[in-house]
Amino acid sequence: MNMQIESVYHRPTDNYAYVCANGELRIVLRTKKNDLTEVQLISGDPYDWTEISDGQWEWNSGKTPMVLAGTDSLFDYWTITVQPSFHRLRYGFLLINQSESIFYCEKGFYAEPLKDNGYYFCFPFVHKSDATDVPEWVQDTVWYQIFPERFANGNPVLNPEGTLEWGSEDPSPKNFFGGDLEGVIQHLDYFDELGINGLYFTPIFKATSNHKYDTVDYFEIDPQFGTKETFKKLVEECHKRGIRVMLDAVFNHSGYYFPPFQDVLKKGEASAYKDWFHIHEFPIVQEPRPNYDTFAFTPFMPKFNTQNPEVKKYLLDVGRYWVKEFDIDGWRLDVANEVDHQFWREFRSAVKDIKPDLYILGEIWHDSIGWLRGDQFDSVMNYPFQTNVLDLFARKTISPQKFMENMTTVYFLYPETINKGLFNLIGSHDTPRILTECKEDLAYVRQIFTLLLTYPGTPCIYYGDEIGLTGGMDPGCRKCMPWDPNEQNQELFQHIQSLISLRKKEPLLANNGSMKWEYESGLIGYRKFNEDKEIFVMVNPNDQKVTITLKSELSHAAEWTDLLEAKSLQKESRSISIDIPAKQFIIISVQ
Amino acid sequence: MNMQIESVYHRPTDNYAYVCANGELRIVLRTKKNDLTEVQLISGDPYDWTEISDGQWEWNSGKTPMVLAGTDSLFDYWTITVQPSFHRLRYGFLLINQSESIFYCEKGFYAEPLKDNGYYFCFPFVHKSDATDVPEWVQDTVWYQIFPERFANGNPVLNPEGTLEWGSEDPSPKNFFGGDLEGVIQHLDYFDELGINGLYFTPIFKATSNHKYDTVDYFEIDPQFGTKETFKKLVEECHKRGIRVMLDAVFNHSGYYFPPFQDVLKKGEASAYKDWFHIHEFPIVQEPRPNYDTFAFTPFMPKFNTQNPEVKKYLLDVGRYWVKEFDIDGWRLDVANEVDHQFWREFRSAVKDIKPDLYILGEIWHDSIGWLRGDQFDSVMNYPFQTNVLDLFARKTISPQKFMENMTTVYFLYPETINKGLFNLIGSHDTPRILTECKEDLAYVRQIFTLLLTYPGTPCIYYGDEIGLTGGMDPGCRKCMPWDPNEQNQELFQHIQSLISLRKKEPLLANNGSMKWEYESGLIGYRKFNEDKEIFVMVNPNDQKVTITLKSELSHAAEWTDLLEAKSLQKESRSISIDIPAKQFIIISVQ
Repeated sequence: MNMQIESVYHRPTDNYAYVCANGELRIVLRTKKNDLTEVQLISGDPYDWTEISDGQWEWNSGKTPMVLAGTDSLFDYWTITVQPSFHRLRYGFLLINQSESIFYCEKGFYAEPLKDNGYYFCFPFVHKSDATDVPEWVQDTVWYQIFPERFANGNPVLNPEGTLEWGSEDPSPKNFFGGDLEGVIQHLDYFDELGINGLYFTPIFKATSNHKYDTVDYFEIDPQFGTKETFKKLVEECHKRGIRVMLDAVFNHSGYYFPPFQDVLKKGEASAYKDWFHIHEFPIVQEPRPNYDTFAFTPFMPKFNTQNPEVKKYLLDVGRYWVKEFDIDGWRLDVANEVDHQFWREFRSAVKDIKPDLYILGEIWHDSIGWLRGDQFDSVMNYPFQTNVLDLFARKTISPQKFMENMTTVYFLYPETINKGLFNLIGSHDTPRILTECKEDLAYVRQIFTLLLTYPGTPCIYYGDEIGLTGGMDPGCRKCMPWDPNEQNQELFQHIQSLISLRKKEPLLANNGSMKWEYESGLIGYRKFNEDKEIFVMVNPNDQKVTITLKSELSHAAEWTDLLEAKSLQKESRSISIDIPAKQFIIISVQ
Repeated sequence: MNMQIESVYHRPTDNYAYVCANGELRIVLRTKKNDLTEVQLISGDPYDWTEISDGQWEWNSGKTPMVLAGTDSLFDYWTITVQPSFHRLRYGFLLINQSESIFYCEKGFYAEPLKDNGYYFCFPFVHKSDATDVPEWVQDTVWYQIFPERFANGNPVLNPEGTLEWGSEDPSPKNFFGGDLEGVIQHLDYFDELGINGLYFTPIFKATSNHKYDTVDYFEIDPQFGTKETFKKLVEECHKRGIRVMLDAVFNHSGYYFPPFQDVLKKGEASAYKDWFHIHEFPIVQEPRPNYDTFAFTPFMPKFNTQNPEVKKYLLDVGRYWVKEFDIDGWRLDVANEVDHQFWREFRSAVKDIKPDLYILGEIWHDSIGWLRGDQFDSVMNYPFQTNVLDLFARKTISPQKFMENMTTVYFLYPETINKGLFNLIGSHDTPRILTECKEDLAYVRQIFTLLLTYPGTPCIYYGDEIGLTGGMDPGCRKCMPWDPNEQNQELFQHIQSLISLRKKEPLLANNGSMKWEYESGLIGYRKFNEDKEIFVMVNPNDQKVTITLKSELSHAAEWTDLLEAKSLQKESRSISIDIPAKQFIIISVQ
């Protein structure tokens, strides 16, 4: 059978060819699923030629096999990591299957490798400054997302007018329970106990709503949450414990009561701020639709004109201010995709100049490659992770195999350097809670956390999910955190606690080493490995026990250990047969 | 027959989805050649939903047909231009052939369009600041490349020691003929006569060689070429005549005699400039290979460390200096691909801050998408244009059909906004001259110039090619320009002159309107058109006459005109039958 050459894809950029911080170059080739048996990279330095006879020159190139690193429903992904001697590379691919071999390069497909390397793909120079690696600490972080109004009320003096008793009512779009920063400080031990080492706060700047996404003053902490001194203390205390702090930057739009927008409302065309927004015409109207750009069609969230130098300066100053004065460790960028790329490029320079290892995380729900080229964000929120988890466990619309294929598709959308910082989540203040999505089936939630906390990326737990809090779509998912141990599911807490602890103990479970899906019938499973060790994570979402045989690919396979139970299972064996009860999971190492 | 879905490609970035300066969004889809009969874009604002019954919402989307805009040897390219009402777009593609219809979106392929637009591709916001259009003047420019040492000797007082009589010998790697800036000034009328309106100078800064690519001082004009006053006068005189001036920036490497490198050679590790280059170890050696990074393996061209802030500042100052003080209009960046992306991002900001419509042109021979995202270059040198022209006319290794397919492949590598500024060339100081490549067959050269000067992009003529200068590979291609009319091919000059004049008179021949290849057997041809007018460029490279029938797609086809002969051919007709003699060409309009 002939190869399907039209399905072969490579371009020397983005997820297909990228620089790693250590100076390595990673190359990825996409081919039709099961179409090839082997791929060889043919490569060499563009200028490295040898005169083999008078006036006859031959290019010094070599052939190296690529690895089939993943397969989704349509494609195989072949990868290789190289470190070119002189930092430069010309390369092509030799595609091989049972019946033919074809050479693929920038200029097309040929019967055999060409002699003139001008036809080849080119990665002209591997510069470390072009690497897209996320900050190292992010790769070892487990995040905890706090919605400050609902986490803990530490200082009732700050309660806004009409504050309700903690947890006395269901959350509504407009009610207040008095959560604040002091409340967070009072529970720092709780974070240590759980094991998380990163706090992501939804907005804390002055605003009118309980969610604070309608900023009124970007340079002030909302008085209901506390003072700048309290926030400074919070960051300092977190840092003492090795916990990083990330804030939410709402730079796509301001709140309605943001003074510059109020000025425009009042003075119309005469306002000095009229070009701070995208006003289509004066006078301003809000019906039937606002005649100014907004977030969605919400008149209360006027969109910033981030191409206006004054606005740019203002927002970049905001970005710098909280990093410089309060030493925050990350900015999560709200509705990041609707702001222009040039703004984010300048934002990155501005904040990374102050703190080079600051984490810049974009809220983008769709393919985000345009923001992940080393010039804008470090990474994005991994909503597809959540969608696939829900489709599998909650909605039951996809099979375990389809789950793994979908996750593979997402994995190969971005460089691995960026995948290590992909912000994996299973719920947030914008979605129903995971326990509610799973119709309160705790077994599913335990499985989901097992995946979340062993998968590549930087996982995030939405406050309360770890103790079995329930809640539907916003505002339901914004309940007060129950602090009475009797109202907390201690068993779930302990499960998550031990997963986090395991992730810290076993670097393979975080972002070290490689990963490969294990396609066992009906299961979700993967092997995370390096040359010395393999860890299998196998999840059984079925209602029946499954017996499987795991095979090690190590040359020295010796001892199999159940990591969750901390129990040795078998010694001196290359494989192990094991039962996974219904709706259970295992995490097993071999070394 | 079923569709080959694995060959379908789209991603909402780069050449597949891009913003135009007028606020339009252009979308391109690639499918297997001849696999589909029709493609529909299904699109709408992401937030625009209507409640159709209690709690039931329906997304407001529309269906628009896409145009099959091009076909290469493997793929069809479908395009559409949209202007979303609220600047935001979610979209998917309905792929249709004789036997089936399939919906394609970000999450994959489905039997029919999905209701949830979260599955669709997303172009979240069309910002004009993200447009990649080249400066408007570039789209109307015809360039003339000057190698200053060989164009004209206007001031013999400046002649370096040992200067030879003008044109008295063949060029060698080390001889000098005394060309200078005064010589260029003395021939300004010549440019007007020819009709060009852009001068691109290979390096003019202080250097030791005759080609000046080995810079010694980036802030000085080479004394052999003249003074800063002369250069200032040259730019001013050009501007008076509407001629733009572009200089060559050699920022990848310095010359061997660049004082900082000399300092490193002298002082070794103690040099304050030791981090200005990539020195692997001290002491510095040059055999068998330099132990510092160089251009290729040339010890005399030490590579800059453009990640060193001091180097960056120095080179950015150079970039700014010649724009600010001398008002140059463009920078052509030598070996641009081997410098880090971050450097070029800062370079762009630095120079465009001074002159927003400066043209930034990168020397890149291979796929250049990574530099063409609005953050680095405006465009690149279109070497594939040259390669394909030579493969067809000179080397005769490809057929006219393959020529057109290859050109289509290149065309769809980049956004059209960038194609309008692609620097099309058929020879330079680095390659044999076009007449020599064509074995001195003037008929081919005339055909080639006909293509060069009517094709989309910004064409460049290498000095002397217009009067039939010959010369092999460098240094052969660097002969002195002969100024004796008897040594110039006046007929060729006049042909090029009339093509340039036609390009100015007929906006369709430059970068206005659309373009479509005409696959007539054995010919190279294209139609450039808008709603009112069509221009056919048909080139017959064969040794026999060809008779063809051109069909207009205009609704009002009326009058056919031979533009080169300025002769009316036929009236009130939808088609025309016409002879193209062997090795000839026609440029015919219908309106």
